[in-house]
Amino acid sequence: MRGWQLVKRPDGMIAESDFSLVTTDKPALNDGEVYVRNTWLTVDPAMRALMGKAEEGYAPPLPLNAPLPGRAVGQVVESRSPDLKPGDKVFHTLGWRDESVGPAKSFSKLPVEADLSDDLWLGLMGMAGATAYFGLIDVTQPKAGETLFVSAAAGSIGTTVVQLGKILGLKVIASAGGPEKCDYVRKLGADEVIDYKSPGSMIDKLKKAAPKGIDIYFDNVGGDHLDAALANARPFARFSECGMIQTYNYKDARQPVPLGHLMRIIASRISIIGFTIYDYEHRLDESRRAMAQWIREGKLKPCIDVTNGIETVPRAFVGLFTGRNVGKTLIKL
Amino acid sequence: MRGWQLVKRPDGMIAESDFSLVTTDKPALNDGEVYVRNTWLTVDPAMRALMGKAEEGYAPPLPLNAPLPGRAVGQVVESRSPDLKPGDKVFHTLGWRDESVGPAKSFSKLPVEADLSDDLWLGLMGMAGATAYFGLIDVTQPKAGETLFVSAAAGSIGTTVVQLGKILGLKVIASAGGPEKCDYVRKLGADEVIDYKSPGSMIDKLKKAAPKGIDIYFDNVGGDHLDAALANARPFARFSECGMIQTYNYKDARQPVPLGHLMRIIASRISIIGFTIYDYEHRLDESRRAMAQWIREGKLKPCIDVTNGIETVPRAFVGLFTGRNVGKTLIKL
Repeated sequence: MRGWQLVKRPDGMIAESDFSLVTTDKPALNDGEVYVRNTWLTVDPAMRALMGKAEEGYAPPLPLNAPLPGRAVGQVVESRSPDLKPGDKVFHTLGWRDESVGPAKSFSKLPVEADLSDDLWLGLMGMAGATAYFGLIDVTQPKAGETLFVSAAAGSIGTTVVQLGKILGLKVIASAGGPEKCDYVRKLGADEVIDYKSPGSMIDKLKKAAPKGIDIYFDNVGGDHLDAALANARPFARFSECGMIQTYNYKDARQPVPLGHLMRIIASRISIIGFTIYDYEHRLDESRRAMAQWIREGKLKPCIDVTNGIETVPRAFVGLFTGRNVGKTLIKL
Repeated sequence: MRGWQLVKRPDGMIAESDFSLVTTDKPALNDGEVYVRNTWLTVDPAMRALMGKAEEGYAPPLPLNAPLPGRAVGQVVESRSPDLKPGDKVFHTLGWRDESVGPAKSFSKLPVEADLSDDLWLGLMGMAGATAYFGLIDVTQPKAGETLFVSAAAGSIGTTVVQLGKILGLKVIASAGGPEKCDYVRKLGADEVIDYKSPGSMIDKLKKAAPKGIDIYFDNVGGDHLDAALANARPFARFSECGMIQTYNYKDARQPVPLGHLMRIIASRISIIGFTIYDYEHRLDESRRAMAQWIREGKLKPCIDVTNGIETVPRAFVGLFTGRNVGKTLIKL
């Protein structure tokens, strides 16, 4: 069994050399345990916040020299539990490895939806899809005709938010890095696309893209994007704070972020609302029902970026921060 | 008639020399107009945001060399309107002057509450009281037993929020500048008081005062107080953004404010909610009813800081930013 471990806390930008692929013997199964061969893995930018000292993270830091967790889909090979049998497809969080052994309760059987491919359970039908769904629909309560700004729009969450925005009848302003990603996002339906790598300030670029201002900001970036959203917010704008990838690789997690437009929170009566998907786990059926229907109707398309083989996991993860990926990054084993 | 005018846009810290007291002849009254002699004036820190270039302000900048507005209480001397008669006491916003002439609809008759003194209509029974009331009760939805942090607690809004917090059964952590103000706030009922002028970081001081963190932050200050609140926020904390006095006198209204703990918004699922009292004007009866009852029950005490004479207006206003005032600053004419 091969699995990736964090062997060095990153000092600033995460590097492939911070990880090591460690081979271990498959342990004998205890009563109640199952042995799963993973078929799909995914990497998630939020994990970066748990790799440093992580004082600002969602959870305690990940230990060094121990198997890394991560969302995965696999198939049961051997079972000593009545709950799962060989051949069952499962979703679990014992990823960043090719095979997993653990108690059956750590693995959830995939719902039988014959027409939905397995990898969707790591994307639109999984936590990434639910994050976009609840972060937009529940947190910001959008009304048709409003203007939505979404940052990192070519990313896993962003590609979904752009499409959900159009499904809900919003005007969608999206930011992405470089002409290729901008084209991609435009093809997904974004009405205006901002290349954040082009010259000029984000504030001016957003003003140009949304001259009447924005009603909703779905934040995946933080920093200058957040400041631009503050500067351009219409009265009673709602900000859904999903991620701040711009700051995850700061050398010091507490490096101050300069915001020039904080007073706009008051002047424009903005609500800035932080959320994590963990608070919505009891409502996953709701997002999955909606997402499955939109997928079947052809209104929502999976955007995935696939690499092959367990060896590619750290490269795929680092790529999240160097801007290499488009859509949800998946590793096919 | 004497009234103060802004004669110079402040460059950084506001100064008394930015104002000039101008004498004009009383105009003849037109039909529908009244002539009011003011008895009480007040000054309000939010006005500072309208004196500079005010790109970040609530409203367009105040014009130079024109009578300044401001909340005031007065008595009708002469009337050419059927709606008001000589002797009527009125509330209005034609302040920063000793006498006012204007259409009767610009003046609201004070509700007859024989036991409440006139100056209360500029404090607890006025917009300042309503700001504390709605900013705490409506914006943050406090529950008894929760921990509230309120900044600038010796100020007009702060002294009210401290008392409302205790009425609502909250644990109240308050910040103020210097031992005298801290004593004052402690006597109002605050459970823990932080002297923000003492050595050390606000983050550490707040952590010491609220080791289990805060559920609610009522922000009058912004800047390092806001960052400290982010750093110490418990899950699902609510921030009521009322004012950011720390930044009003920046030379550049857009001077960036460095925040080191923005990721806490997500990790701790914080809601940061901007509001202005203008959005609650239709509900003033609600706050006035509650405030009047608490005043009569002796649970809520007016905290006022009175200077005498129209000449003292700019000094009182500048004092809001140099930390000279305690409670609501009033000018008695």
